[in-house]
Amino acid sequence: MISLQTKFIEKEIPYTGAELRSHFIYDQFDILGDAAVAFIGSAKVDLNQMVDLEDVKQKKPIYSEKMVHFLIEHFEMNLKQMVFCQRILIALMLEELLKRIKQFSLRRSGDDLFDDDAKLTVSIATATPVSSVIHTGINISSRNTPVLTKGLEDYSIDPKDFAETILQSYQREIESIQKAICKVRGVL
Amino acid sequence: MISLQTKFIEKEIPYTGAELRSHFIYDQFDILGDAAVAFIGSAKVDLNQMVDLEDVKQKKPIYSEKMVHFLIEHFEMNLKQMVFCQRILIALMLEELLKRIKQFSLRRSGDDLFDDDAKLTVSIATATPVSSVIHTGINISSRNTPVLTKGLEDYSIDPKDFAETILQSYQREIESIQKAICKVRGVL
Amino acid sequence: MISLQTKFIEKEIPYTGAELRSHFIYDQFDILGDAAVAFIGSAKVDLNQMVDLEDVKQKKPIYSEKMVHFLIEHFEMNLKQMVFCQRILIALMLEELLKRIKQFSLRRSGDDLFDDDAKLTVSIATATPVSSVIHTGINISSRNTPVLTKGLEDYSIDPKDFAETILQSYQREIESIQKAICKVRGVL
Amino acid sequence: MISLQTKFIEKEIPYTGAELRSHFIYDQFDILGDAAVAFIGSAKVDLNQMVDLEDVKQKKPIYSEKMVHFLIEHFEMNLKQMVFCQRILIALMLEELLKRIKQFSLRRSGDDLFDDDAKLTVSIATATPVSSVIHTGINISSRNTPVLTKGLEDYSIDPKDFAETILQSYQREIESIQKAICKVRGVL
Amino acid sequence: MISLQTKFIEKEIPYTGAELRSHFIYDQFDILGDAAVAFIGSAKVDLNQMVDLEDVKQKKPIYSEKMVHFLIEHFEMNLKQMVFCQRILIALMLEELLKRIKQFSLRRSGDDLFDDDAKLTVSIATATPVSSVIHTGINISSRNTPVLTKGLEDYSIDPKDFAETILQSYQREIESIQKAICKVRGVL
Amino acid sequence: MISLQTKFIEKEIPYTGAELRSHFIYDQFDILGDAAVAFIGSAKVDLNQMVDLEDVKQKKPIYSEKMVHFLIEHFEMNLKQMVFCQRILIALMLEELLKRIKQFSLRRSGDDLFDDDAKLTVSIATATPVSSVIHTGINISSRNTPVLTKGLEDYSIDPKDFAETILQSYQREIESIQKAICKVRGVL
Repeated sequence: MISLQTKFIEKEIPYTGAELRSHFIYDQFDILGDAAVAFIGSAKVDLNQMVDLEDVKQKKPIYSEKMVHFLIEHFEMNLKQMVFCQRILIALMLEELLKRIKQFSLRRSGDDLFDDDAKLTVSIATATPVSSVIHTGINISSRNTPVLTKGLEDYSIDPKDFAETILQSYQREIESIQKAICKVRGVL
Repeated sequence: MISLQTKFIEKEIPYTGAELRSHFIYDQFDILGDAAVAFIGSAKVDLNQMVDLEDVKQKKPIYSEKMVHFLIEHFEMNLKQMVFCQRILIALMLEELLKRIKQFSLRRSGDDLFDDDAKLTVSIATATPVSSVIHTGINISSRNTPVLTKGLEDYSIDPKDFAETILQSYQREIESIQKAICKVRGVL
Repeated sequence: MISLQTKFIEKEIPYTGAELRSHFIYDQFDILGDAAVAFIGSAKVDLNQMVDLEDVKQKKPIYSEKMVHFLIEHFEMNLKQMVFCQRILIALMLEELLKRIKQFSLRRSGDDLFDDDAKLTVSIATATPVSSVIHTGINISSRNTPVLTKGLEDYSIDPKDFAETILQSYQREIESIQKAICKVRGVL
Repeated sequence: MISLQTKFIEKEIPYTGAELRSHFIYDQFDILGDAAVAFIGSAKVDLNQMVDLEDVKQKKPIYSEKMVHFLIEHFEMNLKQMVFCQRILIALMLEELLKRIKQFSLRRSGDDLFDDDAKLTVSIATATPVSSVIHTGINISSRNTPVLTKGLEDYSIDPKDFAETILQSYQREIESIQKAICKVRGVL
Repeated sequence: MISLQTKFIEKEIPYTGAELRSHFIYDQFDILGDAAVAFIGSAKVDLNQMVDLEDVKQKKPIYSEKMVHFLIEHFEMNLKQMVFCQRILIALMLEELLKRIKQFSLRRSGDDLFDDDAKLTVSIATATPVSSVIHTGINISSRNTPVLTKGLEDYSIDPKDFAETILQSYQREIESIQKAICKVRGVL
Repeated sequence: MISLQTKFIEKEIPYTGAELRSHFIYDQFDILGDAAVAFIGSAKVDLNQMVDLEDVKQKKPIYSEKMVHFLIEHFEMNLKQMVFCQRILIALMLEELLKRIKQFSLRRSGDDLFDDDAKLTVSIATATPVSSVIHTGINISSRNTPVLTKGLEDYSIDPKDFAETILQSYQREIESIQKAICKVRGVL
């Protein structure tokens, strides 16, 4: 089985988009190989740093006072597989939120989480020359955001506890996917 | 974009495991290409038809009086990608169930749905020589099952309506994944 | 099936080589996903913009007063598959030219079209970090070219009509290839 | 470069469909590796031997008194790449026929060659557990065929000479594709 | 990192060729996922069980009174990668033998080990519908073999100790390869 | 079979790390396609040119007065396959050294060769946008190196003769791997 390494980083780190690159996790946190890390920090991604060209076209830079950021790097996944991983990560986040706050206004739409019309997350998956990477941020604060948002504070959810739970459930899911590949016979 | 074709089959079809093969959808329903279909029928899969070798080893044949069955075939996905698709399908089913019945005892564990300890689904993804295939069944009836189960009847959910909603949301999710691949620039 | 989007762009665009990049079609024409577009314009590609290293080595920059340009982007094809697509595109162009002008001096040699020794086309396929791309230009004018050429004007072929026919036949071919993958059983 | 081996087999061999399998070329002709061979013989493929499920569904068995058969096996190509190869093979056959007989009623439609409404060829590409394979047959005789056909005899084309020319041009095309992959720099 | 599981099986098992299949390791030893196991036993593989078609053609069945057998299964490697793994396994075996017996007549030739002209090993890598598998046997006894052989007994090497050393060094090599993929930046 | 081209370059070339890029072999030596070349020269790779991020992190630039350098480029191999090739190259170098100097203090550890604790080689494999590349250098001189080293001079091995032998054995190994893929039937 692939053992994905995970770590919650205690230090606050402002997210600028430059962190979405190969080996950021290795360079900064000395974790070599497939890994998922989380940290708390503001989010301010200028248009020229953004990789979602739809958002660039619509001039929608990313801004949040405070988010939990998830950075994931897989070394033998292509972009398509990474988008699958991203969707599963978002589904896990919804499932965890629902377990904690039991509000049926929460919903997933592709790679976004909403509470009614309020946006909780930003997320992107892309390719590097040697790996694929995901960034997903979920608001802690919902103040001063360019669109209507909600954040973990609004639900009284502890960001670090939430982050660690998601890191564990993502790790478990990836391992369980790996196991699923190994236990089936082919059919005609 | 890939346009996945979907169809709810009105005719009841007992699921025996033999349906989990390449081109079953084309042979039976004349739909050529990537497709997801759903139908209603019993489920009785003998051990020698099962592809989950863990279940074979533990001698856990599949039995349900009545299920909604989903059969999916993708022609340019390998087994790993198909397991990702399977997880996303199950996540979509959980999200739909929660939307309809608002019971927080519902949860996903890998490719299974549970209500507390009662199992709602069976699911498998495997490879054929020319494609990959998924079978997922969700109980309609929870009577006479080998383990504790719940079914759509227990929640007063209309099976056909549920099936059609899931087929649509799976189609939308696959299209949105496809689009996500096409709108990002790479990073270093 | 993949539905490749196609569009003939009415506006003239000079081709400089910089257009051969990922997402040019999305950025300029707002078409997201696999696509083939055509437009009319001059071609002047300096050596430092060229991607064919054989031509760079032989110091053969590209120049034509007026061409029909085809730009194609596929998001889940690697370079090898893209070279196959390029060959098929050129074969389609030969077949269309032969249908229209019935001159047996026309011939394909790899990714080039010739009329006897006169060159009709330039063509290249390459990879981007997130997709693969093709540029193929066919001369409208054959004046002032660095080598002996022929152009659509020499055959009294309407460039726009030719471009639209090729876009359609390429789309049909790609769809038919996709279908071919879905209709065969494997053998031993 | 891949060096595809080619051979025209002098002995007549009736084609039954069983020849479309991995290592037939190695077993019969002792050619190990990627190879294209051609031979002359009848074609009689029963429905249960056919791999084109559309033809099986429409109950269209293959029959021809005498054909030139091309069998091709590539060991590191998947089904999609093999369908590309098949199209290129058919394009080469059209180009060769046009060069020889200069009749503009000849045309390619996907993996089929026609002379007006008369069918000249049958062709299929499929996957084996270790390789991909193509069979293409072009009629020599057009007598007693289930649909309207034309054959090389109708054009006074020598089958062996035609076969050897096609084997050479296919080999040249595959080598030239291989070379095309090696001479381009990537773009952004 | 992939963690390849390894196990030396204490029970003697005669090797007949039927063991070279997907999930043999899971079925017999309850190890799920990428794994390498070793056991001691005779080797008698009839021609119809052999997967090396060159040996089948030359009618060279496998026979040895007593061998150490290595069976390896990787679930996300294709045949090409598995042949690489096989070569590395054989290189590791040579390196271990040289360390132990310091005889320069030992040499590797592709996937075979020789002592001068005496053959020490048999080895094959092939694909299953869901994985790739390797069998490598090294003679313990060199008596009664169809060709000139040497075995571990001739060098007074303890088979179990040799097997366990090789299992460990193969595991280490695979992990180190995995790590090598994760620590390099791409270049232009 | 892939025919890998090889060449020993007579001219001395100082290795700076900039040579590890796509098409260096084509640009400098006019060899198009998969190729392995060797040349003699110093090695001085500054940290900002290094692709091994572990060495960068540990601030271990590369320096050697004189080395035999091997540069290899394969156009249809991904990074994982290239790391396999690198290991096989190093194994071949060990086997050749042992054949020549018969010192059992020589050993391979992953992609490094050692004589006891003295390092003989540096080696790296990485990906380019269109290919994968390997650099391996083996010391000729062991003077003035930042760590304890040995070189071919210490063993009185002629560098050019060694280089040519390795180029040939690498070519033979790659061809034999290619052949191995083509001669096996799949199993279940």
